[in-house]
Amino acid sequence: MGIIGSTLTPFTATAFQKGKDFFTVTDADLAGKWSVFFFYPADFTFVCPTELEDMGEKYAQLQSMGVEVYAVSTDTHFSHKAWSDTSDKIGKLTFPFLGDQNHVLSNNFGVLRQDSGLADRATFVVDPDGVIQIMEITCEGVGRNANELTRKIKAAQYVRANPGQVCPAAWEEGSDTLAPSLDLVGKI
Amino acid sequence: MGIIGSTLTPFTATAFQKGKDFFTVTDADLAGKWSVFFFYPADFTFVCPTELEDMGEKYAQLQSMGVEVYAVSTDTHFSHKAWSDTSDKIGKLTFPFLGDQNHVLSNNFGVLRQDSGLADRATFVVDPDGVIQIMEITCEGVGRNANELTRKIKAAQYVRANPGQVCPAAWEEGSDTLAPSLDLVGKI
Amino acid sequence: MGIIGSTLTPFTATAFQKGKDFFTVTDADLAGKWSVFFFYPADFTFVCPTELEDMGEKYAQLQSMGVEVYAVSTDTHFSHKAWSDTSDKIGKLTFPFLGDQNHVLSNNFGVLRQDSGLADRATFVVDPDGVIQIMEITCEGVGRNANELTRKIKAAQYVRANPGQVCPAAWEEGSDTLAPSLDLVGKI
Amino acid sequence: MGIIGSTLTPFTATAFQKGKDFFTVTDADLAGKWSVFFFYPADFTFVCPTELEDMGEKYAQLQSMGVEVYAVSTDTHFSHKAWSDTSDKIGKLTFPFLGDQNHVLSNNFGVLRQDSGLADRATFVVDPDGVIQIMEITCEGVGRNANELTRKIKAAQYVRANPGQVCPAAWEEGSDTLAPSLDLVGKI
Amino acid sequence: MGIIGSTLTPFTATAFQKGKDFFTVTDADLAGKWSVFFFYPADFTFVCPTELEDMGEKYAQLQSMGVEVYAVSTDTHFSHKAWSDTSDKIGKLTFPFLGDQNHVLSNNFGVLRQDSGLADRATFVVDPDGVIQIMEITCEGVGRNANELTRKIKAAQYVRANPGQVCPAAWEEGSDTLAPSLDLVGKI
Amino acid sequence: MGIIGSTLTPFTATAFQKGKDFFTVTDADLAGKWSVFFFYPADFTFVCPTELEDMGEKYAQLQSMGVEVYAVSTDTHFSHKAWSDTSDKIGKLTFPFLGDQNHVLSNNFGVLRQDSGLADRATFVVDPDGVIQIMEITCEGVGRNANELTRKIKAAQYVRANPGQVCPAAWEEGSDTLAPSLDLVGKI
Amino acid sequence: MGIIGSTLTPFTATAFQKGKDFFTVTDADLAGKWSVFFFYPADFTFVCPTELEDMGEKYAQLQSMGVEVYAVSTDTHFSHKAWSDTSDKIGKLTFPFLGDQNHVLSNNFGVLRQDSGLADRATFVVDPDGVIQIMEITCEGVGRNANELTRKIKAAQYVRANPGQVCPAAWEEGSDTLAPSLDLVGKI
Amino acid sequence: MGIIGSTLTPFTATAFQKGKDFFTVTDADLAGKWSVFFFYPADFTFVCPTELEDMGEKYAQLQSMGVEVYAVSTDTHFSHKAWSDTSDKIGKLTFPFLGDQNHVLSNNFGVLRQDSGLADRATFVVDPDGVIQIMEITCEGVGRNANELTRKIKAAQYVRANPGQVCPAAWEEGSDTLAPSLDLVGKI
Amino acid sequence: MGIIGSTLTPFTATAFQKGKDFFTVTDADLAGKWSVFFFYPADFTFVCPTELEDMGEKYAQLQSMGVEVYAVSTDTHFSHKAWSDTSDKIGKLTFPFLGDQNHVLSNNFGVLRQDSGLADRATFVVDPDGVIQIMEITCEGVGRNANELTRKIKAAQYVRANPGQVCPAAWEEGSDTLAPSLDLVGKI
Amino acid sequence: MGIIGSTLTPFTATAFQKGKDFFTVTDADLAGKWSVFFFYPADFTFVCPTELEDMGEKYAQLQSMGVEVYAVSTDTHFSHKAWSDTSDKIGKLTFPFLGDQNHVLSNNFGVLRQDSGLADRATFVVDPDGVIQIMEITCEGVGRNANELTRKIKAAQYVRANPGQVCPAAWEEGSDTLAPSLDLVGKI
Repeated sequence: MGIIGSTLTPFTATAFQKGKDFFTVTDADLAGKWSVFFFYPADFTFVCPTELEDMGEKYAQLQSMGVEVYAVSTDTHFSHKAWSDTSDKIGKLTFPFLGDQNHVLSNNFGVLRQDSGLADRATFVVDPDGVIQIMEITCEGVGRNANELTRKIKAAQYVRANPGQVCPAAWEEGSDTLAPSLDLVGKI
Repeated sequence: MGIIGSTLTPFTATAFQKGKDFFTVTDADLAGKWSVFFFYPADFTFVCPTELEDMGEKYAQLQSMGVEVYAVSTDTHFSHKAWSDTSDKIGKLTFPFLGDQNHVLSNNFGVLRQDSGLADRATFVVDPDGVIQIMEITCEGVGRNANELTRKIKAAQYVRANPGQVCPAAWEEGSDTLAPSLDLVGKI
Repeated sequence: MGIIGSTLTPFTATAFQKGKDFFTVTDADLAGKWSVFFFYPADFTFVCPTELEDMGEKYAQLQSMGVEVYAVSTDTHFSHKAWSDTSDKIGKLTFPFLGDQNHVLSNNFGVLRQDSGLADRATFVVDPDGVIQIMEITCEGVGRNANELTRKIKAAQYVRANPGQVCPAAWEEGSDTLAPSLDLVGKI
Repeated sequence: MGIIGSTLTPFTATAFQKGKDFFTVTDADLAGKWSVFFFYPADFTFVCPTELEDMGEKYAQLQSMGVEVYAVSTDTHFSHKAWSDTSDKIGKLTFPFLGDQNHVLSNNFGVLRQDSGLADRATFVVDPDGVIQIMEITCEGVGRNANELTRKIKAAQYVRANPGQVCPAAWEEGSDTLAPSLDLVGKI
Repeated sequence: MGIIGSTLTPFTATAFQKGKDFFTVTDADLAGKWSVFFFYPADFTFVCPTELEDMGEKYAQLQSMGVEVYAVSTDTHFSHKAWSDTSDKIGKLTFPFLGDQNHVLSNNFGVLRQDSGLADRATFVVDPDGVIQIMEITCEGVGRNANELTRKIKAAQYVRANPGQVCPAAWEEGSDTLAPSLDLVGKI
Repeated sequence: MGIIGSTLTPFTATAFQKGKDFFTVTDADLAGKWSVFFFYPADFTFVCPTELEDMGEKYAQLQSMGVEVYAVSTDTHFSHKAWSDTSDKIGKLTFPFLGDQNHVLSNNFGVLRQDSGLADRATFVVDPDGVIQIMEITCEGVGRNANELTRKIKAAQYVRANPGQVCPAAWEEGSDTLAPSLDLVGKI
Repeated sequence: MGIIGSTLTPFTATAFQKGKDFFTVTDADLAGKWSVFFFYPADFTFVCPTELEDMGEKYAQLQSMGVEVYAVSTDTHFSHKAWSDTSDKIGKLTFPFLGDQNHVLSNNFGVLRQDSGLADRATFVVDPDGVIQIMEITCEGVGRNANELTRKIKAAQYVRANPGQVCPAAWEEGSDTLAPSLDLVGKI
Repeated sequence: MGIIGSTLTPFTATAFQKGKDFFTVTDADLAGKWSVFFFYPADFTFVCPTELEDMGEKYAQLQSMGVEVYAVSTDTHFSHKAWSDTSDKIGKLTFPFLGDQNHVLSNNFGVLRQDSGLADRATFVVDPDGVIQIMEITCEGVGRNANELTRKIKAAQYVRANPGQVCPAAWEEGSDTLAPSLDLVGKI
Repeated sequence: MGIIGSTLTPFTATAFQKGKDFFTVTDADLAGKWSVFFFYPADFTFVCPTELEDMGEKYAQLQSMGVEVYAVSTDTHFSHKAWSDTSDKIGKLTFPFLGDQNHVLSNNFGVLRQDSGLADRATFVVDPDGVIQIMEITCEGVGRNANELTRKIKAAQYVRANPGQVCPAAWEEGSDTLAPSLDLVGKI
Repeated sequence: MGIIGSTLTPFTATAFQKGKDFFTVTDADLAGKWSVFFFYPADFTFVCPTELEDMGEKYAQLQSMGVEVYAVSTDTHFSHKAWSDTSDKIGKLTFPFLGDQNHVLSNNFGVLRQDSGLADRATFVVDPDGVIQIMEITCEGVGRNANELTRKIKAAQYVRANPGQVCPAAWEEGSDTLAPSLDLVGKI
């Protein structure tokens, strides 16, 4: 089976979150909530802050949708804190950053670049049962889009909440959905 | 190494394209062009047509950007033709459909669901050197977004054309890009 | 042991049958009945419809003999339905079509052509105990013959019903059968 | 790949043919001709003579079509001769019998029943290139049909002679054939 | 350990015996009796009948000594019967013939010639405990000698009945035997 | 392949022969002559001398037939000499004795009893090409018969000298032989 | 062989050094110079800065002795730069810091703590031939001593420069050394 | 895991200690105390005595700190005694010497030079739980420093006694220590 | 561990001893007594008798010391008896000879020469616990010395009887022994 | 093959010899001379000096016979020198001592006691071709005998110099030897 539909591999990581003491996050902490794993290559670099800032702007909305966001790089939690302390943009972000310097999460999700020791620019959405539902990776230099991510999470939440309904392409909250039936086969 | 940055596995497939005789497509045919592999589960089903229609609306623009689109499912090219012949929506689409009933492409890209024999709802963008640069998978019931895909391809083309420049999050054509430099380290 | 005399490998497949909702067929559903697995390469192709039509003309008779017919290709049940909906010849057929897009049945019976992902033009007759009693495969371009198949099923049913009797070559219902005995050894 | 379309495994066997001295047959002797391998369980038994007699009646016609018939069992050529000498029915048959007491042919064609050391009631048609084109197996007690076999060989010969033509179900010599084309896809 | 002194490998075979219906023989049927396995290459051949006839002349005597004789070739029991029915010499023989067309006995005793699928011209004497006590093999064209075999079986029976006695070379019933003792070491 | 028809495994052994210095015998020395390997368990024991004496009485005849006799046990050539020196019966024997204390010959011919380190009471006849043609083994206590051995060697020599002729059971020199032909199949 | 006396495993790493652009360091760059690999667990932590500061105070002296110092942690070169930019103590250090986020150096020297993804507090001295001559590791919480390290490097340089001389315990530059000779064996 | 933090491998060795009978030392004897394993290449050699003498001068202090010192070489305990008996310098040393002529300790600690059969010039400090906390190896000709070793043991004892405190670089007893806290991250 | 100090491998052998019937010897029979295994190449050869005679002269003394002597060669017990019966020198020997024609003892003690199938000229002394204490092997042509063997057995018995005492070089019964003590280390 | 008759395994060792500088000995140095490897457990122990002294008394004679003596223990050459310097008895010995602290020689000759790291009390005599001709091992506490060793070396030298002659048991120089011949077989 591919990664979509598979269950999260157990993990333990140390997190930095602005205004809190360092704390431990495990797969058990995710149960019952939607989670976004937002991998980026390295602290103190270039595209990453714009992507993290973009996520920061959606964080309140995602929180209200019951979604936690975990930023992850192969830096330590010490480095995450230092970045937060010294960068205006990062200092404003209030979601947790996981230290993956032991490469466990990057390997679990298959996004570690062995040569460089850095993670891909990859996003994974995990549902309240720990099942991965949505993923995306872009190459170096291509920033992601928090707006589109939010749209897809909404669709996934809608589908979970409304069995028998599916969301068409580029569906936006409030738009029509489809209810598959035998009669529709070959008719769309 | 993960899939991003890896080179396309060689393949041979039979294609249906409206108004043409069946023809063969191989990895060699892709050299020098950008390609989108747009996997969907099955002909004659529900979400798929909306996503394919969504892609169809962008096809002219993508063509003008030098991008070919290959729709792929584990159906045969016969089935693709029959769908095109009998569905208004599909009948309007002019990009080629690849028959992957031997599961070669789905396996190469790691998106075959073994139990059902169907492919994931997955998109891969391959650059003119045959290197995979962008990928995305969504779960059943969540439609993709051709607009966002186009945005990411534009960013990837921009980065390829402008070495030393990177596109920030949610970058749109014409917006500012970033030129990484030592001075920026820890300053963004 | 060869395939004749071997027991059906367990399977699960989704079936399309005209006028019914999609349904699941497993090996357990076959117990107690005679079954014909009628493999053909692909929906929407050439020889296949004539063979399927030929089977269609015998279907009522086979039903009355306690025989169910399963048409099988590596197409999906969606595709089967679409073919039925759009083809006059196929639209008249009332036996179930199994979707074998995951290649399970084709592999179980050893008739998958790996390169093309299509099944051979193969027929298997399974008795009420799930034991394969008769098989036949022809190359591309050579159509089978439902009349002859019916003759052989009748012979197999006769032999099952009359232990100690065997049917001679080209036996037709009502003709003489033979009762092997020591005295006949070397005497025929 | 399945057996249809595969090439004959090389073999050497000793043959008995009425009115001739014992002689050797190898795969090389088959090149350029059509061949039928007609397996049956054992000399001096029951159904077999009727099937062999049935083949005997078609032998002149098959010869005229360029087809040689090889009857094969796991008996020796000595036993074949003795049967021919002592049985009226067998004594009339003029096609060669191969002695397969070393099980080479039965194993090559996959029709040896290991426990009993006897072959299945199986027929294989091999084309002039040594490629197996048609096969059939029936269970104990169900006789084959030389008429139907002849029909199928004619169809195979027709298809070989007329590239681009295919024979529909139950096709008889002189009937219409089909020429597949793109336009026919989904139209039959 | 060599074959002499080893225990018979379990087997099941179908036997033909003049005047009886076909019946099954297993190693269990041999317990408590002396048995001769008299292998020969093939029914309907040349030296074999003289050897079998030679055995036939001793059969009454062997029976009276408590010895059963099993003639064995890789022919079927059907073939054995046919030979008996049609050959004057074989038709007079009343000991059972085992059908070894599945090669089980020939392999168990190590006398199958793989290439030809025929057994060696081999004799094995098995005692009432299933232990092989005497064996002999001759090449093609060299007939065995039932008289000498009978002499050796008598010696083996004598030794079994008289522990502590051994039979000298070319011993005939009634001649002197030897009782080994320490004093004889180096004295004969 | 079984032992009959197989070629002698190369060996080197030291021989004792009355009236000669110890000498070496290898498989090369046997080429072009008939040889008998006459295995017996041990020097200075009981049955063995009677069997060796029995062979001794035939030795002149065998020599005149071009046959050399090699007596073999797992004793040394020293022991063989000592036995010859001290036993009246053995002292009269003039054929060579091979010392097989390294078990090479006993293992080559498959007649070493591992537990006791002694050879079986086994005879092998090797033709001038080094091919084993006749063999015999008897259990402990059952003496062999040089007369019968001579008869079989004569038959083997006759068959070698007269291709196309075979010797019937219990054939004695001068008796009729058989010439197999197709016409005889099933007629004896 | 242990690590002392072994040759440096080839590596490539990216370095940060105050006032310079990022640059690449490989084992080849070390040839002909003495090198110190000074591993520490993580940027932005506690004991580490005091140890690095301690090294900083000796750096000029080590440079004058022909020794380069490489500080190494599993942080990136980006993180090293950020630490240098924001910490007064680290900002004063002018030796290069290697980014070992891919764990290559930590694994090569056997000092990676797999669970935490951090390096031990370990020091290695490599001579101009790439051979490791001195090493030291202390547990968490125990700071090293740059003075003692300098003393040991001086001794190693003295020994290299003066073959036949050895430095006694706690040797300081200018103190007496020893010249081993046979006469001294057992005399000290 | 590296050696620091790993637990002592069990061992048994025979010790010589001045003024005592030979006695056995095992890992169990070390429990609850701090231990120093002080490896040196060989008795009766050059640098070793100066290093051992240097340790001798610290022995009383180390004893008072609860630390036992074990000198170890691949010589026997007999050799150790002889050295002590005949060398003035060694004769003054009162700590135990372990005989490692079976290479168990040298291998356990990874410091055996296979070619020469001698140990490296290596020091290991083991805490009362049997965990290795500090290690050091120098090349041939470079003497160690008992003063620095004592400093590091004091630091390790301090850290063990004062959880939450760490000793900075070159820390000496009585100097300040550090208490890591979140606020210090990135602030030193 | 080497052979000295190892325990005898279990064995069973048949023994010849002058004036007794053949009997079985196993390792269990040796318990509680001292045993000498005196291997020699072959009965009826040259040096061997002088060595065996030499042992014969010491046999009474060894017996009185509680030592049994087993002469062993790869000859049978039959051969041993014959040698004893026919050789004046061997006929006088009253210790048992073991037949090792199955090579078990020669292999157990590692003294079988594979090529020749003969044992080395080897002596092993086994103590009452079955532990091998003394061994010796000489090349072909070099005779052993029963006197020296007796001297060594006496020393071994003395050491066993007097724990804490050791016998110096060339010790003879009644001479001084040594009691090792710490004070003697390095003093002899 | 056993050790007698095998060729010395190549080795390199450092030797101490009174009055000389340390030097290297390899197997190449032994070519053309007889050598004795005289293993003993440890320097500075008890039985060993008496055995070494015993060898010392024969050393001049052995030298004159062209035999070099190598004393070997798992001590270093340093230890050997110290023992020589401090022990009156050892100080008188002028043959070389090899340092085997890397266990190479003890392992090559199979006499290393793994647990204790000491060699057995073993002697090996090597001829000028590097072939081991004589060996002996005694248990702890049993001293060897240089007189007997000298006797055996003389015998081995005699046999080498006089092909065809063998030395009887307890042979002393000047005594009679034997010339084996066929006539002597079974006559001694």
